[in-house]
Amino acid sequence: MKYYLGIDLGGTNIAAGVVDENYNIVARHSIPTGAHRSFEEIVADMARAAKEVAEKAGLPLSAFTSLGVGSPSCINPKTGLLTFANNMGWRNVPIIEELKKHIDLPVLVYNDADCAALGEALAGAAKGYQNVLMITLGTGVGGGMILDGRIFKGADGAGFEPGHTVIVYDGVMCTCGKKGCLESYGSATGLINQTKVAMQAHPQSLMHEFCGHDLSKVDGRTAFESAKQGDKAAQDVVDQYISYVAVGIGNLSTVLRPEIVIVGGGICNQKECLLDPLNEKLQDYVFGASDIGAPEAVAATLGNDAGIIGAALLEKCME
Amino acid sequence: MKYYLGIDLGGTNIAAGVVDENYNIVARHSIPTGAHRSFEEIVADMARAAKEVAEKAGLPLSAFTSLGVGSPSCINPKTGLLTFANNMGWRNVPIIEELKKHIDLPVLVYNDADCAALGEALAGAAKGYQNVLMITLGTGVGGGMILDGRIFKGADGAGFEPGHTVIVYDGVMCTCGKKGCLESYGSATGLINQTKVAMQAHPQSLMHEFCGHDLSKVDGRTAFESAKQGDKAAQDVVDQYISYVAVGIGNLSTVLRPEIVIVGGGICNQKECLLDPLNEKLQDYVFGASDIGAPEAVAATLGNDAGIIGAALLEKCME
Repeated sequence: MKYYLGIDLGGTNIAAGVVDENYNIVARHSIPTGAHRSFEEIVADMARAAKEVAEKAGLPLSAFTSLGVGSPSCINPKTGLLTFANNMGWRNVPIIEELKKHIDLPVLVYNDADCAALGEALAGAAKGYQNVLMITLGTGVGGGMILDGRIFKGADGAGFEPGHTVIVYDGVMCTCGKKGCLESYGSATGLINQTKVAMQAHPQSLMHEFCGHDLSKVDGRTAFESAKQGDKAAQDVVDQYISYVAVGIGNLSTVLRPEIVIVGGGICNQKECLLDPLNEKLQDYVFGASDIGAPEAVAATLGNDAGIIGAALLEKCME
Repeated sequence: MKYYLGIDLGGTNIAAGVVDENYNIVARHSIPTGAHRSFEEIVADMARAAKEVAEKAGLPLSAFTSLGVGSPSCINPKTGLLTFANNMGWRNVPIIEELKKHIDLPVLVYNDADCAALGEALAGAAKGYQNVLMITLGTGVGGGMILDGRIFKGADGAGFEPGHTVIVYDGVMCTCGKKGCLESYGSATGLINQTKVAMQAHPQSLMHEFCGHDLSKVDGRTAFESAKQGDKAAQDVVDQYISYVAVGIGNLSTVLRPEIVIVGGGICNQKECLLDPLNEKLQDYVFGASDIGAPEAVAATLGNDAGIIGAALLEKCME
């Protein structure tokens, strides 16, 4: 049996895992990221987590042929540096070089959303598909594209950033500095803003009750759950939100034409309340859907494991 | 010397060419499409044009290893049929099969915008680049993407339709049935509409003089030329129009990350009046431009020849 070693680097935890060739996680080890610490300290702990999880799995480091890392941001192909990781305050850091000081393995670093897409494509919701678009509706909108079984990082290798495509010209200001990005409308953060606006316009809406009449308690479930109770204003928020998501996924599908779309992130817990109307709207927003069809959107199935599995299996998709 | 045989099928003309291995067109032959005629008649004339141009070049058909065709629409990979060609009123026609009845060569059919992109990437504005996005600002907005030297037709092979990505949520109705497509805002048709709206709001604008006070004579040059004379309302139209184009190209670059962007179509005759502000705006609309850079937008150089050269060379990019 061949084993793979991966790390999902998050703002909260460094999650390491050993994955077998059937894509099962056979050992896990997680330590707090301590994002306020120095780059060197965090990287030293990443190497430590990798060594400890190997030990938990009862395997020597020499059993592995690489260490795969899923990280916020992406390696700049021109410099070999990790471009930008907001959570850690990193900009242009030599993450591969620094990891190699602590661990004697080839190191592969990819964007965490790319790793999650690869994990779902290999072992999760898109198992068996070679061309997969994954979109994560969380605090932001992330995403990865698997093209012919490989991670597509853009033609120049600098990354794939579907959340920062504009769907509303001159729209809401995004954290990236542009206006009207899919992230500003399709993220949980966007949904919360849309929910609050609707609540202010509809003082009688059930949404007020749902969040205890406290606007600060509005979350990604407020509108969805109130809509399930028959609240019209909440239903309008949900419809509008899903339309934004459908336009974003529709745009990406119109140029990339994946076979399947995986939706991850907190909002995908809404399951058919999200996916049924989303798939209906994709028929309108994917160009040529009536002639050629539109890809089906399905919910991610691996949760946080997708990132670990994808990171560990990075070497496999380099073959 | 190896020679290649190609046809660019347009609504007006069937343009056939023989191209040498240095990408020069060594013979041309053009016959009217007669788009009102039957599918079978038009295809018979396509074969006739191919045979006649080979004769003009002094070459037997056996000198060629394929016939490449650039056509509106795209072959549906599930059916092998040409999906939809509006100009000819074709829907799901067996163009490859029908051509083979008349000409004993393997036939390759790709979208005409894909062929133009390939032509410019091999022999024109993007010579030497392997990753090229071409966007054509004409009656509509077409485009092609060359990825690793090959035409990218989308993961499922069904086509790449950048003009039908939405940039203005719930915006102007597009001919495709969606609202707010790049085509509705970034095409010459979109520019003409934007020009007319501005003229109605600004009765003193030079634009009225430029088109002889006849709104029906407004074209893609009206705003650009009046802006060059210092007309403020015209300059605003031009700025806004280029912003739409920049958002569209910015979105595509944010996910595809081409090394270079070629701008073709009638509007690219405005040269630096289009390209200088466009390149400036791309710094804002390509995600991560400040860290990783944005691709440069340059004008197409081959005009209509790009489509013929790309069609003829299709077999080369299949290697």
